[in-house]
Amino acid sequence: MNNIQVERLLINYKTLEQFKRFKEYGNQELSMLEDFQNNIIENNSESPFYGIYIGHNLIGRMSLYRISAKYDNYFEPAQDYLELWKLEVLPDYRGRFYGKALVDFAKSFELPIKTNPRINSHAFWEKMDFQKAQYDMERDRGENPLIWMPEGVKEKDTGQSNSDPEE
Amino acid sequence: MNNIQVERLLINYKTLEQFKRFKEYGNQELSMLEDFQNNIIENNSESPFYGIYIGHNLIGRMSLYRISAKYDNYFEPAQDYLELWKLEVLPDYRGRFYGKALVDFAKSFELPIKTNPRINSHAFWEKMDFQKAQYDMERDRGENPLIWMPEGVKEKDTGQSNSDPEE
Repeated sequence: MNNIQVERLLINYKTLEQFKRFKEYGNQELSMLEDFQNNIIENNSESPFYGIYIGHNLIGRMSLYRISAKYDNYFEPAQDYLELWKLEVLPDYRGRFYGKALVDFAKSFELPIKTNPRINSHAFWEKMDFQKAQYDMERDRGENPLIWMPEGVKEKDTGQSNSDPEE
Repeated sequence: MNNIQVERLLINYKTLEQFKRFKEYGNQELSMLEDFQNNIIENNSESPFYGIYIGHNLIGRMSLYRISAKYDNYFEPAQDYLELWKLEVLPDYRGRFYGKALVDFAKSFELPIKTNPRINSHAFWEKMDFQKAQYDMERDRGENPLIWMPEGVKEKDTGQSNSDPEE
């Protein structure tokens, strides 16, 4: 386990091609591909994705993005936090702690983390010490946010009226 | 098809019990159930859900919520719009236009609509005349937003720097 290496993914044709193997390939990747083809993104520039290679094969990945404290509606005190999405390990490589290695990497920044798990992934996230955020409809809509907090950070107490977009 | 009736769902034990048949049962419903049991929500108060009954059976539903113009990052000019989520018809009732009836009901408010489709539902949304929103990572993160616009409304041109949370 100690030799699993997580690295920042660079945008190039190879990475963009390997992304297609992942189930959650979507608008984000299509938009990156388009920007890359139109020379809006430089070759080998940094992507918001981190991943694990076995040989030259990308076998797991996640997207990780730092949200500024002023947009923080989840933690107390309000602070920069990481939004984690598209965590995915290719089917042949599951059950070997690659998912855990990615999450541990995210935790190593020592910032709170928020994610919106896919249906049926709750057992995994519980093992990773993530907990359900209090549900606030105006803030969370159709999401089921899970959060993880480093020591000294608490969940923000929402109270239904705190984040009412109608106000 | 003309006699499919969409109605606002009222919060009571029966509705909350019927919600459990839907795949996307999650924190939202659990939080409603808890609030209901603790008398924070009154019996038969209005929920954010709309649904279709066949006899006494709830066979389809969606959540619909009006977002205020000042939080609108999708449309031009900025305006109130509807966020639609958890659109779902029970397996035995699919292929009979109940999903379309729900979407048509949402459209009848004549406000733009935004939704985050589940994987593999794009063909349905395309038939409903929804289109991909331009992907903006800071705004959309892991989402693949689809939008629908009534006449006279345009999509907002994001440009990568418009909604940078780091600014």
